[in-house]
This record gives sequence, structure tokens and C-alpha cells, in this order.
Amino acid sequence: MSIRDELQGYRGKAREILEAAGASIGDEVEVKVGDRVYRGILMARYELADPDYIVVKLPNGYNVGVKVSDGMAVKKIAAAKRPQFNPPPRPPIKPGLPRVFVMSTGGTIASRIDYRTGGVRAALTAEDLLSIVPELSDIADLDAEILFSLFSENLTPAHWDRMAREVDALIRKGVDGIVISHGTDTMAYSAAALSFALQKPPIPVVFVGAQRSSDRPSSDAAMNLIAAVKVAGHAPFAEVCLTMHAWHSDTVIAVHRGTRARKLHTSSRDAFRSVNAEPIAYIVDGEIRVNASGLNPRGAEEYSFKPGFSGDAALVKFYPGMPPILLESLVEKGCRGIILEGTGLGHVSSDLIPSIKEIVDRGVFVGMTSQCIYGRVNMRVYETGRDLLKAGVTPLDDMLPETAYAKLSWALAQTRDIEEVRELMLTPIAGELGGRSLPTREEVKIG
Amino acid sequence: MSIRDELQGYRGKAREILEAAGASIGDEVEVKVGDRVYRGILMARYELADPDYIVVKLPNGYNVGVKVSDGMAVKKIAAAKRPQFNPPPRPPIKPGLPRVFVMSTGGTIASRIDYRTGGVRAALTAEDLLSIVPELSDIADLDAEILFSLFSENLTPAHWDRMAREVDALIRKGVDGIVISHGTDTMAYSAAALSFALQKPPIPVVFVGAQRSSDRPSSDAAMNLIAAVKVAGHAPFAEVCLTMHAWHSDTVIAVHRGTRARKLHTSSRDAFRSVNAEPIAYIVDGEIRVNASGLNPRGAEEYSFKPGFSGDAALVKFYPGMPPILLESLVEKGCRGIILEGTGLGHVSSDLIPSIKEIVDRGVFVGMTSQCIYGRVNMRVYETGRDLLKAGVTPLDDMLPETAYAKLSWALAQTRDIEEVRELMLTPIAGELGGRSLPTREEVKIG
Repeated sequence: MSIRDELQGYRGKAREILEAAGASIGDEVEVKVGDRVYRGILMARYELADPDYIVVKLPNGYNVGVKVSDGMAVKKIAAAKRPQFNPPPRPPIKPGLPRVFVMSTGGTIASRIDYRTGGVRAALTAEDLLSIVPELSDIADLDAEILFSLFSENLTPAHWDRMAREVDALIRKGVDGIVISHGTDTMAYSAAALSFALQKPPIPVVFVGAQRSSDRPSSDAAMNLIAAVKVAGHAPFAEVCLTMHAWHSDTVIAVHRGTRARKLHTSSRDAFRSVNAEPIAYIVDGEIRVNASGLNPRGAEEYSFKPGFSGDAALVKFYPGMPPILLESLVEKGCRGIILEGTGLGHVSSDLIPSIKEIVDRGVFVGMTSQCIYGRVNMRVYETGRDLLKAGVTPLDDMLPETAYAKLSWALAQTRDIEEVRELMLTPIAGELGGRSLPTREEVKIG
Repeated sequence: MSIRDELQGYRGKAREILEAAGASIGDEVEVKVGDRVYRGILMARYELADPDYIVVKLPNGYNVGVKVSDGMAVKKIAAAKRPQFNPPPRPPIKPGLPRVFVMSTGGTIASRIDYRTGGVRAALTAEDLLSIVPELSDIADLDAEILFSLFSENLTPAHWDRMAREVDALIRKGVDGIVISHGTDTMAYSAAALSFALQKPPIPVVFVGAQRSSDRPSSDAAMNLIAAVKVAGHAPFAEVCLTMHAWHSDTVIAVHRGTRARKLHTSSRDAFRSVNAEPIAYIVDGEIRVNASGLNPRGAEEYSFKPGFSGDAALVKFYPGMPPILLESLVEKGCRGIILEGTGLGHVSSDLIPSIKEIVDRGVFVGMTSQCIYGRVNMRVYETGRDLLKAGVTPLDDMLPETAYAKLSWALAQTRDIEEVRELMLTPIAGELGGRSLPTREEVKIG
């Protein structure tokens, strides 16, 4: 998706015709083919769509795709109206406010979808932000940049690394807090990832997204953003975290720990939940209410930056009847670590265990989490679990599968020694492991 | 796992020595190696454990593994006490009670783990059941059989078919209700699967499991089983469903629709929840309280049995950075259908779309669900979703990923025509699809 492309999604011949007419998305146009005339608003196209059509929204509300042909004539009738891209002048900065940097990676919160045209535009200069949410100027002295303009499903471990390095550079520049606006689809994965690269940061690093874009009346974008900037600039804790609606209503925003957040609803505004943990704070009536003890304090001096994310990790959910080929093909292609999402307390079918043992013997890390999401794995209760332990699988306690995947991507970039990877995976770094462990009795071997 | 093996898990030399001594698991034994003597309870072993050890629980509670050697001597000191395997005589059958058949497939509810020895024993003859839960004799005239004794993670689509055929045979024999005891790990997958094979059955088919085995004080086995037998014998509805604790306490049991249940906690007694639906009933104070309308009534006459489950389906959860190889290798090995667990409203990274298009073009069904679990996919909101639709991916609304996988396994066995598979997947059969659909405006192509 190219941002601010005036002919978003148009390619080839269709694009040439529109360029020649000087038309942009949102303009009123007239498209003539033979004796048929279509007059309406020029609509954006999406990438994989058939390129040989020009799409116009007719006055009756329907979209018409007109096939490009030699005899086609396009005329621009009137330019699009885009009042939102002439923002009011930036309000004067109030003295004494914390300096908060907003880094945009894309997603709904960073976009203003123009429903009239279907086009998407980035809106994350500091000026754009303040024009959308003027309240921000009372909370922080804002600066902003666009790092990526990507739907979050397109982010990879390489993007996590880029984000982490940008955040580290900003920390070293001395800002008071960082907000990362992000698509909600994989925001929890990214927040978990940065929790491992940015250990005990001196300032909050706050992910924020929106389930509904800012031009919809039900948008959560403004409330979430206000809360994120508030936490970034004013929270007494300095955690990698994620601020989103706690309930359907606008009254409470939850602050989730980066390693404990999960998107648990496709569309509702309170889609994100902390799993196996409470939110670390809430924002109620504009005030931060801390909800956890032992948080990393603002100004912490043990900050350590550990960049690097490997693309050699994988996350595999087990299902009844899963063939061993799935794991084997990953390893053949160079995968160095696999997080399994097993059933219940951490199981897969016995049929897979010989393959898993072979994979582990070849030096691949295999960690176990549960597709139950809530609770913790315990691989000593049933025979299958014990067999998996024997095969060399590492149980990951109550770590979320997504967090375990992000952590493994990070661990594999820190060392090539499989024992060190295992040790990193089992060492609590950012609240990702419960810490409460049940005693189990090991067999003592004699003789 | 072999049931009622008196030397469970012992192999080779170790087994020979124990057999020669006439020792069984649970017996008090003395193991002598040189001048060292270990006296304690003979413990069960698990399959992949090193076979060269005999394990004894010492009076101090620790387990000792004694390595098998030539000079080893084992003596049986006293036989195990197993009062629970001499059940009291079966109480007389009360006239007028419904005939309920309990089919055991394995899992915690069907076992009595002897924590003293670590051994597992099946306990699902009707006599065993009644000895554990005498209340059952007031609810139904029980009969029981062991179909499998498998941990549920080892069940496959072939087992679903076997179960469905057994249930169908019992329906034709005229029983009044069927209870299927099942390991909880994959119980929701099995319940979903049978919902498609047994359409509009005339009697309830009730899955039941236990999160804690029946010899633990906190066991949920008895309460769940009582509720399941109650529903099987007395419910006014005839649905494939699943009865488990609704809360942590013993007061309420929930009846989940087979296609809507999901195990959402590794260990708690109320691990199962209905997703995107309410439970269809609750059992409160021993009474069934129906909680849904439009249920298939007991005695329904439109019963149709559609057996068959294919092993050619797969369930793949997307994660950031997932390589196309994962999908491609499945298809290379003969996979004919894939359920994707995408992010958010039903997305995967754009990098995967060309592979997906190729897979679909080769005649493989690809359906989209969401790893958010709650909510429904909507692939018309964002560019990625629209691109996936263009590539031929079928959006599966609010169907749970696990249910979609079970349904696809079933659909692929009903027909080899990919269009018919798609149609089956999109046709609501057992409450698996929400039915509420939002209108979307399609582009009309002209020219």
C-alpha cells in the first residue's frame, strides 16, 4: 500500500489514462466508453485487483468497474475535497510537558480511511495527530515520525528489529516516552518482541492501536492514543506495554504488559486482554492507576539493549491428525527453533514424538505452550507429556504461544548455542513467565 | 498405554526380573543390588522411559530408579491393596429410567490414576461407573463399553469416524441417550466432528471429560458425568454437546454445543467455554435449564448419518514471518484442504498470498478463521482480506478454527469436488456458523 499515492492501486493502462486526465482518487470524474457515460467519484483500487478496470462510485452509491478500452475517455469534473489534510496550525507547545515521540508503523490507528473513495492515508505527522486529537497538546510535547506504513500482518522479525533499534536511538536521545502506533492484528507479537530487545528501559514504550478507524463515530483511536501518550509521558513505570480499551465503553483503558497481551476478539474495541496476568495499569478519568507491583520504574538504570531477531523460528499449532511432515519440512528449510502450541497441559500425538526427538537431536530448539491460552503447561502429569520431555521438548510454563515465538526469534539471534537458547527461554525477562512453579518430584537415578 | 497391565511400562530385562518375582505395580517389593537394598512400592513406568530401571517409591516419598544389573534380586514383600477394583455389586435397575449408553474413549474421566503407583487403570464398565458414582443409578439404566483407551491427543479423524459409526449403531438400537467420555485435550474437536456426521440425531450425544481424575478430592469427574447422563437421558433437546463445569465450583454445569466449545484453560475445572454463542443449557441443582431456542428436539425425525472423515485436511495458524513452505509442503504431501487461522478479521502476510493462490488454483480448499477466537472474520474491510478473497480463500465467518478443521475433514470425505466442499463449508449444519451476516457492496463489473 503506497501512502499518499493519488492513484492508489491503479496500474498499467488504467493508470496512464487517469494520469493523462489529471485525475486523483476522490475526484469527480466522467468515464466515457462508446455511448455509455459513468459519472461519479474515482475510487481507489487494491493491489491484486484486476488492473484493467477503473472504478467509479455512482451517485446511487454503487461502485461500477469500467473495463479499460482504446476508445475510453476520462475527464476530471471536480477535484476531491480533503479538508482533513489541511490541518489547523499546531497549537503552541506548553512548557514543562514531557517529550513523547510517536512512531507510526501503520495500521488502522495511523490511517484515515476515506470511506468515500476507499483510499487509505497516513495521518501521523505530529500536526496530523494534533489536528485529530487536540487534547494531546495538554499531555505532552509531541514529535512523530512514520517508520513503516504497513498492515501489521506484513511485519516480520526483521521489522521488530528495526523498531527496537529506532526505540533505542530515541531512548539515547533522551525523550521521556515512546508511543508506537501499530496495526492491531500482530501488535501483541511486536510488543512481546520489543520486551526482550529493550530490557528494563528507562522510559515507557507504549504500543497503541485502534479497532475502528478515526473517521468512524465509534472509533477507539483517539481515546487509546490519549491514554498511550499519557502513559508514555507520565507513568511512574517504564515497561514495554500496550494501551487499548478495557471495555466496550470509552470509560476505561487498560495497560497490558507487552508479553501478556493477546487480541481475543476480531472487532470489538476491548479486543485485547492480559492473559495469565492482570493489566499492569488502567487509565480512568485521565488518571493512571497502577495495578501491579514490582514494575520497572521510570528512570531505571539497568537498561540493556539486546537487538536482533532471527527469521529461523516457527510457531506450530498442533491439531488431531497433524502429520510429522509439517515440522520436518520447517527444519529442512533451516528452521532452528519451533514453538509448539500443544493441547491441554502441553501435548501432541504420540505419533509426532519420534520426529520431535530427531529434530531436537539435530540441535533444533522445541518449546511447548498450550493452545488453551489460559493456564500453564505441565508435562509431568500424563504419559505424553513425560514422553515429550524425554524427547527433549522444553516446557514453557504459562508463556503465551505468541510471546514464546517472539522470544524464540529473539533468543535465536542472541546465540547459536542451543543450550543457551534453552536457558534464555527459561529465564524470566519481561514478565513472560509466571514465576509460580509447582514442585515436582524427579526420579533420582542410582546404580 | 495398555490398560490393566500389571507391569505397566516395564520392558526387556526389567520386566523379566519383575515377572520372575511375581511382582505387580503397587506391590511392596525389595530390590537388592550388591549390598544396597531398596524397599518400597513398585511404580509404573512410562513408555519412552529408559527401560533399564526399576522404580520404587521409598517410605520417605522419593522415587528411586535402580539400574537393572545381573546381580539384581527382586522380592515381592506384600501385594498391592486395590479396594477400588472390587466394586460393590451393581444396584438393581429402577424401572422406567431411560437407557443411556456410556462409550469410553479414554482420558482422565475414564481412568483412575493410582497416585501411589503412577499407574492408570480404565474404570468404565457400567459396574465401575456405578461404584464411583452411585447416584447414576437414579438417573438412567446404564450400559457402558470401552471403545478406545487413548489419550485424546492421539485421536485422529479416523477415530472420529469410528466413534460416529458406533453412535449411529447405538441410535439404531434405540437407546435414549449416549454419553461419550473423552480426554479433554481434543474433546472439542471430536464433539465438533461428530456434529457433522450425526445430523439432527433423535437423541442427545453428550461428550464429557474431567480436568481432575476421580481419585482427587477436587475431581470434577462425578459431577460432569452425572450431568452428562442427565442430559443424555432426560434433555428435551437432541444435540451433539459437551457437559463440563461452568464455574470453578460444583454448583453449575454448562452444556456447550459441540461446534461452539473450546478448551480455554489448561487445568481449571471450568476450562471449557462456548465461543461466539451461549451454552445451550445449564444443569443447576440437578435440573436441566435450557438456554437456547431452536434446538433439535428429542425424537427428531430428520436424522441423517453422514459418516466419513478425511485425513487430508490441515489447520495452520499464521504467525508473523511465516514462510510459504509450510503450506506448500502440506499440499505436496497430498493435503486437499487447509484451514488458516489468520490474524484479526482474517489476514495473513501479503507474502503468502501468491502461494495461497497457487494452492487454490491446484484445487485445494483454503478457508479462513481467526486466531482471535472470538468474533468473526470479515475480509472486505482491509486490502489484505480482499486480496485473499481474490486469491480464492473462503471466509468462514465466526466458525471456530478447530470446528472448521473438523468440518473440513468431514467435507473432504463427502465429496472430491472442491466447489461442493466450499458449499458444505458455507452451509450451516450444526450451529457452527453465526447466521448473522453484514451486507457488503460488491463491485459490479461492466464493459
